Amino acid sequence: MMQRGFLDKEFQNRVSLAQGLMVKNNLSALLLTTEPDVRYFTGFLTQFWQSPARPWFLIVPASGKPIAVIPSIGYSLMNSTWIDDIRTWLAPNMVDDGIGLLIDTLNEVAKDGRIGIPDGLESHVRMPYADMKKLSEEVDISSDYGIVRQLRMVKSEAEINKIRHACSIADNAFNSVKDFAEIGMTQSNINRKFQSACLQSGADSVPYVSMGLGAGGYYDVISPAADIQIKDGDILMLDTGLMWDGYFCDFDRNFSMGKPDPRVISCHGYLVDAVMAGLEVAKSGSTAADIFHAMAKITGAGKALEAGRFGHGLGMQLTEWPSFIPDDHTEIVEGMVLTLEPSIETIDGRIMVHEENIVIRKDGAEKLSTFYKEMVIIE
Amino acid sequence: MMQRGFLDKEFQNRVSLAQGLMVKNNLSALLLTTEPDVRYFTGFLTQFWQSPARPWFLIVPASGKPIAVIPSIGYSLMNSTWIDDIRTWLAPNMVDDGIGLLIDTLNEVAKDGRIGIPDGLESHVRMPYADMKKLSEEVDISSDYGIVRQLRMVKSEAEINKIRHACSIADNAFNSVKDFAEIGMTQSNINRKFQSACLQSGADSVPYVSMGLGAGGYYDVISPAADIQIKDGDILMLDTGLMWDGYFCDFDRNFSMGKPDPRVISCHGYLVDAVMAGLEVAKSGSTAADIFHAMAKITGAGKALEAGRFGHGLGMQLTEWPSFIPDDHTEIVEGMVLTLEPSIETIDGRIMVHEENIVIRKDGAEKLSTFYKEMVIIE
Repeated sequence: MMQRGFLDKEFQNRVSLAQGLMVKNNLSALLLTTEPDVRYFTGFLTQFWQSPARPWFLIVPASGKPIAVIPSIGYSLMNSTWIDDIRTWLAPNMVDDGIGLLIDTLNEVAKDGRIGIPDGLESHVRMPYADMKKLSEEVDISSDYGIVRQLRMVKSEAEINKIRHACSIADNAFNSVKDFAEIGMTQSNINRKFQSACLQSGADSVPYVSMGLGAGGYYDVISPAADIQIKDGDILMLDTGLMWDGYFCDFDRNFSMGKPDPRVISCHGYLVDAVMAGLEVAKSGSTAADIFHAMAKITGAGKALEAGRFGHGLGMQLTEWPSFIPDDHTEIVEGMVLTLEPSIETIDGRIMVHEENIVIRKDGAEKLSTFYKEMVIIE
Repeated sequence: MMQRGFLDKEFQNRVSLAQGLMVKNNLSALLLTTEPDVRYFTGFLTQFWQSPARPWFLIVPASGKPIAVIPSIGYSLMNSTWIDDIRTWLAPNMVDDGIGLLIDTLNEVAKDGRIGIPDGLESHVRMPYADMKKLSEEVDISSDYGIVRQLRMVKSEAEINKIRHACSIADNAFNSVKDFAEIGMTQSNINRKFQSACLQSGADSVPYVSMGLGAGGYYDVISPAADIQIKDGDILMLDTGLMWDGYFCDFDRNFSMGKPDPRVISCHGYLVDAVMAGLEVAKSGSTAADIFHAMAKITGAGKALEAGRFGHGLGMQLTEWPSFIPDDHTEIVEGMVLTLEPSIETIDGRIMVHEENIVIRKDGAEKLSTFYKEMVIIE
């Protein structure tokens, strides 16, 4: 059985790397407010973040261990992590929902120094705006200069193991689709059965399933599953972000329900070729843009670009930095976990998307999902 | 089969109520950035918000229909809602990820008027802090004066129907626990089987399952399910926030695995009595604090208060306003959907929590979950 959690030294290492970058950037502390950022430095893993009721804060000082400033309901779980200094308030509180305690703690830890918060692409501050305004008047808030992004983008071996395990669970679930999917079933029923298959294969949870459905392709990949029947000739796309021990996989499979249109087979072939072209350049020294261009060369440009990118980072969140787009020149380095996700226009505005997961190694990339070559036909 | 989605007039009504309050508060527009707030005024329902990669914006002007300012990947789905004015950019964009288009649109819509954003308890702004700073320099950002909270807190009949349906799905799933839960199974396995039972009963997804486990009670209700075996004499608590068509239920059940300690039975009895006491005062004219005190009178104060509250609002999110705490004096009004969720200390720091769901009607409350009287014993 796979080991859950991390050794303390994993967190010590993350904090130590962060502190090195904080000194370089003249920051006295980092302030983190979102689920993945708080978890990254603590191991605090809970679905309770689904509730928007309470803010949660973690302070990573320029030296020493992180300090948690959290609602008292989280004390017991935070106390089971490697964190020692846990300061709590009884939340929700109508007058001061932790902001006073946070300001006091930041003043104590950072003195008059600058406090970095993640403020770039893919980030947000998870606290009420009124409190954030107050905070920025009381302490010296600064950018984190991408420190959290830079660290989280490169995965440790322990993190890679969890993502590989999540991928293997999804692989199993995808293999079972041919056993339950039939023409005539509703899309929403397939969706429910697929989620159950993910759970039965060992997923802790299935936060994300998207589907595409249509003859010759689909119009988008973000609509919820509808109570509509699957017809002979439809392409059925299932994309899953299931989780194991706090880490995601993110890849999809296209199924032909009945005999496929030759055009669809041909488009699927282009997508598989594009993934292989992306895999080829996915290595240290390349950039995110290089990977995009390698795939776009096969699929062509145009309509497919509506999706905006051809893959992205993967880890504690379904999607992470970098993005495979022409303008993202992030250097690819060993330890990055990535999705290769080209899309292509099939007919009259319809698209197909294909996605696989990889990790960058010393000499190229390791496949984390089972790379498909042929589209599965369910008749 | 239950009807998915809403009629356009539901959204027209929400916008019209918001616009009345905007005029009162001298606001030229509302700016919304989070999944539930954007969905509330549009019907834009997708799990794609799991990806933190792209910001999404909705502008509700003081008159006229809302305007969506969103990544192009969302155009097709947004275009299927009642919204006509959809402005897109190709996201992610390394230089300007929609903030320029947002500022231009706000200047066009609000002229020099004030733009309200939800900034109070349970809210946050979902966009990078650097962009939010830029925005607040370019346009006149103000509080929304609780307009969104006030509207979302009171549910329409169509919303109530969806929540009732979600509750009935969870009721079915809870009824099936005795068929699969056994002493000796791991907690994580029970968790997976319970999620499957929710899906089989008709849930679209199961974003939240929390569990408590232990002899005589549990230490907290937010820890993830562990790979530990359930022992004879354990109390097993399952709490689910499953979704149907974008709406949550949120209630729990305590199961005694083997013969229960008389003290546990007695504590469960207090919790059931507390729920009934809460139900009694849950009516127009009471306050959230009144409901808290009615329940606290039965359970006593003390340790149980670590959880911070004895229930809350429920709807598009697992937890919503108000909170059943001594300081929340929100008036209870017809159409509020609420959870009654008292907790109690059983032995040496261990607790039990019990939760049911209700909706406030003209003459008291309607039960949405099947109110339990006895704890289920699984032997």
